[in-house]
Amino acid sequence: MKILLANPNATQAITEACSELARGAASTGTEVIAWTNREGPPIVDSFYTDYAAGWALSQALPRVTPPPDAVVLAGFGNYGTAAVKEVMEVPVVSIAEAALAFALPFCHRFAVLTAPARMVPYTQDLIALLGVAGRCAAVHAVNLPPLNETEPSPASAVTAVATAVEQVIAENGADLVVLGGARLSPYAARLRERVAVPIVEPVACGVLLAEAAVRLRLRQSKAGKFAAPPGFGQGGGT
Amino acid sequence: MKILLANPNATQAITEACSELARGAASTGTEVIAWTNREGPPIVDSFYTDYAAGWALSQALPRVTPPPDAVVLAGFGNYGTAAVKEVMEVPVVSIAEAALAFALPFCHRFAVLTAPARMVPYTQDLIALLGVAGRCAAVHAVNLPPLNETEPSPASAVTAVATAVEQVIAENGADLVVLGGARLSPYAARLRERVAVPIVEPVACGVLLAEAAVRLRLRQSKAGKFAAPPGFGQGGGT
Amino acid sequence: MKILLANPNATQAITEACSELARGAASTGTEVIAWTNREGPPIVDSFYTDYAAGWALSQALPRVTPPPDAVVLAGFGNYGTAAVKEVMEVPVVSIAEAALAFALPFCHRFAVLTAPARMVPYTQDLIALLGVAGRCAAVHAVNLPPLNETEPSPASAVTAVATAVEQVIAENGADLVVLGGARLSPYAARLRERVAVPIVEPVACGVLLAEAAVRLRLRQSKAGKFAAPPGFGQGGGT
Amino acid sequence: MKILLANPNATQAITEACSELARGAASTGTEVIAWTNREGPPIVDSFYTDYAAGWALSQALPRVTPPPDAVVLAGFGNYGTAAVKEVMEVPVVSIAEAALAFALPFCHRFAVLTAPARMVPYTQDLIALLGVAGRCAAVHAVNLPPLNETEPSPASAVTAVATAVEQVIAENGADLVVLGGARLSPYAARLRERVAVPIVEPVACGVLLAEAAVRLRLRQSKAGKFAAPPGFGQGGGT
Amino acid sequence: MKILLANPNATQAITEACSELARGAASTGTEVIAWTNREGPPIVDSFYTDYAAGWALSQALPRVTPPPDAVVLAGFGNYGTAAVKEVMEVPVVSIAEAALAFALPFCHRFAVLTAPARMVPYTQDLIALLGVAGRCAAVHAVNLPPLNETEPSPASAVTAVATAVEQVIAENGADLVVLGGARLSPYAARLRERVAVPIVEPVACGVLLAEAAVRLRLRQSKAGKFAAPPGFGQGGGT
Amino acid sequence: MKILLANPNATQAITEACSELARGAASTGTEVIAWTNREGPPIVDSFYTDYAAGWALSQALPRVTPPPDAVVLAGFGNYGTAAVKEVMEVPVVSIAEAALAFALPFCHRFAVLTAPARMVPYTQDLIALLGVAGRCAAVHAVNLPPLNETEPSPASAVTAVATAVEQVIAENGADLVVLGGARLSPYAARLRERVAVPIVEPVACGVLLAEAAVRLRLRQSKAGKFAAPPGFGQGGGT
Repeated sequence: MKILLANPNATQAITEACSELARGAASTGTEVIAWTNREGPPIVDSFYTDYAAGWALSQALPRVTPPPDAVVLAGFGNYGTAAVKEVMEVPVVSIAEAALAFALPFCHRFAVLTAPARMVPYTQDLIALLGVAGRCAAVHAVNLPPLNETEPSPASAVTAVATAVEQVIAENGADLVVLGGARLSPYAARLRERVAVPIVEPVACGVLLAEAAVRLRLRQSKAGKFAAPPGFGQGGGT
Repeated sequence: MKILLANPNATQAITEACSELARGAASTGTEVIAWTNREGPPIVDSFYTDYAAGWALSQALPRVTPPPDAVVLAGFGNYGTAAVKEVMEVPVVSIAEAALAFALPFCHRFAVLTAPARMVPYTQDLIALLGVAGRCAAVHAVNLPPLNETEPSPASAVTAVATAVEQVIAENGADLVVLGGARLSPYAARLRERVAVPIVEPVACGVLLAEAAVRLRLRQSKAGKFAAPPGFGQGGGT
Repeated sequence: MKILLANPNATQAITEACSELARGAASTGTEVIAWTNREGPPIVDSFYTDYAAGWALSQALPRVTPPPDAVVLAGFGNYGTAAVKEVMEVPVVSIAEAALAFALPFCHRFAVLTAPARMVPYTQDLIALLGVAGRCAAVHAVNLPPLNETEPSPASAVTAVATAVEQVIAENGADLVVLGGARLSPYAARLRERVAVPIVEPVACGVLLAEAAVRLRLRQSKAGKFAAPPGFGQGGGT
Repeated sequence: MKILLANPNATQAITEACSELARGAASTGTEVIAWTNREGPPIVDSFYTDYAAGWALSQALPRVTPPPDAVVLAGFGNYGTAAVKEVMEVPVVSIAEAALAFALPFCHRFAVLTAPARMVPYTQDLIALLGVAGRCAAVHAVNLPPLNETEPSPASAVTAVATAVEQVIAENGADLVVLGGARLSPYAARLRERVAVPIVEPVACGVLLAEAAVRLRLRQSKAGKFAAPPGFGQGGGT
Repeated sequence: MKILLANPNATQAITEACSELARGAASTGTEVIAWTNREGPPIVDSFYTDYAAGWALSQALPRVTPPPDAVVLAGFGNYGTAAVKEVMEVPVVSIAEAALAFALPFCHRFAVLTAPARMVPYTQDLIALLGVAGRCAAVHAVNLPPLNETEPSPASAVTAVATAVEQVIAENGADLVVLGGARLSPYAARLRERVAVPIVEPVACGVLLAEAAVRLRLRQSKAGKFAAPPGFGQGGGT
Repeated sequence: MKILLANPNATQAITEACSELARGAASTGTEVIAWTNREGPPIVDSFYTDYAAGWALSQALPRVTPPPDAVVLAGFGNYGTAAVKEVMEVPVVSIAEAALAFALPFCHRFAVLTAPARMVPYTQDLIALLGVAGRCAAVHAVNLPPLNETEPSPASAVTAVATAVEQVIAENGADLVVLGGARLSPYAARLRERVAVPIVEPVACGVLLAEAAVRLRLRQSKAGKFAAPPGFGQGGGT
């Protein structure tokens, strides 16, 4: 099975980091094809870059050849997920959808960590759109320096994330934490050694949900919301 | 006061129809500057074209010179409204936001009519995102022929819309109806003569809400969700 | 256009303060007719005085001659708003409805400030009734001395309100603040110089929404909830 | 124990009908004191008459001597219930609150029947305010002639109500029905012989909840929402 | 009238404590028959023991002879309440249902205290299931030593509970408190002397709601959810 | 990897049917160990049998040796899922949780089919408990003869289910359907040939979610709700 792991931003280093997480999770027999949204923004850190990413994704992904068996959108956000579902005939899942789907059975209330703080409202809208806000204890920003400053050492980054985890447990009653962003995912393994609650790393969830969808012959419903856009494929769309 | 009326799609005829509605509603002293999203799709009828429209809008609108006093996004949808709010310093309102804001004080429960049927889920997501789903009796599709077929006569179109209005009153308990799309707006006046409930035409609402925002010195909060994107205006955005 | 600005309480000084805010917001050509609810309570600070105000309002307003083009109910509360909508044929909006309608498009989540603390539950009920509780970050009481004590200096009152604004931003994630009461409205201008989020002053919103309704020929739906009471106008009501 | 059964409207015949239902439900040792709101409207059939009733009630009830041990507000509505709770020191319950409280443990989803149809939105607001809308299958109007026409025979009235009961069972999934109005209460006994679901008659619920509150020394919380209005009892209120 | 007070756990001392509270609340003429779930767990302090209790209850209660007029399930939880309602023909109420039903009319927002802390999520699920989460300010754990340690003195236990009450008033805006567990109920009387909000003791509520149901001839609807299980009573159930 | 597929009822034929679906879905290398709840009821068709099943399951599953790597609870219901999560150290998922988690990313609104009709309220409670009711278009009963009558032919059963699918699409706006019961699962493959929306078969989802959990080292959070019951494993539980 070929799964296209589509990084919605144009930063190759993030594609590689996600790819490593994806391959670590994939089953034997699954080929993870890492793909970078070269026409997308350097990172999705606003609604503006969300639209930049989404438009580029929904233009480019239908043209990938050979078509994969499933697509995993490897950013913790929206960035045109519904648009990509419309234009693709194979199953499409975003890692946010996958992480929240996998979180629900294993917790009372989950928290989502994000960075930077401006992504808190963006992430709250995303969770509401997915219809699972009633299970969300908090969306909480991790205190990390801006991306254009020196990246903290892994140890101090893990400490910052662990502090946030402890806060959402103590103050918001969360009993499971979802890492809401490519910047946080690499710390999942080390974090699990330090905190008492399950840590959900979304890239791995995305790969396993895509594998499951392929095996179950399940894909986005084409009977309504995600039907191909009018005229798409007849010169109107691509 | 200069209000930019931005048609999110590239169809000049729709710009003109909206412009007529806008000028009919504007106060003396308000200049309505009609603007067409030339890089956008012919029409927004899917999430795919929503992203096409939104990305083009958020690229182009910050470059409009001279900058207007406010922007009205003249499509009944999302198509990057939050992205445009981020990249603009002046007040930005979509006609969907304006229509729903104006509907709330005047009804028990509103219904939104849309066409074609595939826009029903899209519109439900929009209403939920605006946080007013609890006041929404129904999103209902009007039975009109596809856009690429012969347009019905005004009389038969008005009859189709009036039938839909009567249905949401009788079956869903709506007592006010919002016309959810550029295709329906031109029938507002004739419709009001035929039905017993207020008909909200969104373009006019958008213009009047934009005027009010300018007078009140009110615009989208720049303290969080709608702050300028990181790096925007320093070569990172435009 | 004649807009009746109806102060729901009997305190002339409040009528005058509201009137000044209203005239500052009204368009050229709009005549703001200030009206005091002489049979109402000195102030609406309880459900008891809410009913006193509402009953007097719904008795008196239909008798105002000549009838205005619209009515703005100038208190941040309920006090019979639906009753007045029933008995009037012209558009009726309360300033609470107007302020919340205008807040929605410009924020992620709004907060409402109120005083005294006993009005917090009253205001929460009001926001829920309007169907926008999902967008409300907090209803928060401003720490001001009781009305029958010496009024604080404007400077110290502004400081008290600004402190409350900063609190709802930091603790509740609000990015826009609505001033929920006649006592707070006069500080709007000075407050805007001190805080980073939009401050919504409801009286001005009420006037502009009423103007818009008149121009749009929009009023409360007479097809259900706000139909004239049975027998009203035939000796049964007035 | 003395329970004041306060009919919110001025119609003595309704007081008597409610009184009969109340006495049929009261325990030995409970004295039901029927009281008519002589300054109220002939019937509460609108928000306008709701305010008329509520203001008169909250003026008159604190002056009843000797004060009763509890007050039952005998109309299926709001009409100042919170205002009366503020001005009274003894427990106050409306029959709507009591009926819904008693319905919850005995059903999956309840329906409320009302008449006339214009009271449907009014009743929906009431149920939402009480916080139990999630358990409400439907608010449904019974098809009865207007009050000023000839009252139908009991048999045909029971048939009309039974038809409505069957409809909310079949179409809305209700498994318990609350009779939402003084006009429907007298048919409760005959109705129970004809339908398969429990029929909740609110006057009886009100009396038994008031008795329970007295025995439990439970009354409306005076720590916030229902505290005595500022100045009340010191010349400011009465 | 005979009311069976069914302690869902097997601890006789708890049965006795509940029985004392129940008899203190019951009307003259009501016989409270205390019953201990001998096949149940020592205490319900988990979902595991909830199922142990519920299965034993729904097996044993239909066999009680002579059948009582109503059943009060005397634990603040779920433990098969719906199952017992299915298998019994007489009215069944849990004390949690009764306490929340009685709390609603007398507060703005209630809080539920529980112990130990692990019961917080369990209790949140219970409140959501009853459909009244919108009225719940908080579920809060009281800081008491584990059951297998030395029980604190009544004075220090009352202090621990009073501290929790003050916290939910100040931090969560509660204006009424429900004691959510057999361990807390005995402190109700002393607590009322120390705090400013109504304290709802659930056992007493359960008895009075059961009495009311018997008098009103009201029981769980047998038309759907609570119909006798298929085959029950024909060898399939008992 | 060893996955225990636990049929919550005692009917061996259902275990076998589920086992076939499970093995058809499992990855190479996954051993599906079918297990029947011999102390459970013949079928879970009520809250009463839900408790019977749940108590037996939570007693028996911790004693299975050797312990599996994960447990799939193979009934579309609750039947002590939380209790089993408490008493097990390995990941536990019910097929209802799995099916709904997998449905969310692939639809706008899902419907759940169930049989018999009495399970509709039971299933509505289940969906609400999982926190995804906002995405549920309908819970709808399939018209099948009672279990103790002659089972219909597969062709007529498929027709009955397909009719129900078409109904929830047309009347409730569903665009994906979950088969909510062991009785419906075997028809999934034939159904997919007849209807236009994705059909989610829960047993397969359960197996793939359990596999994913094992690979991701994800299990129910032991930090709160699902911690081992007090005393469990020390003679207190088993």
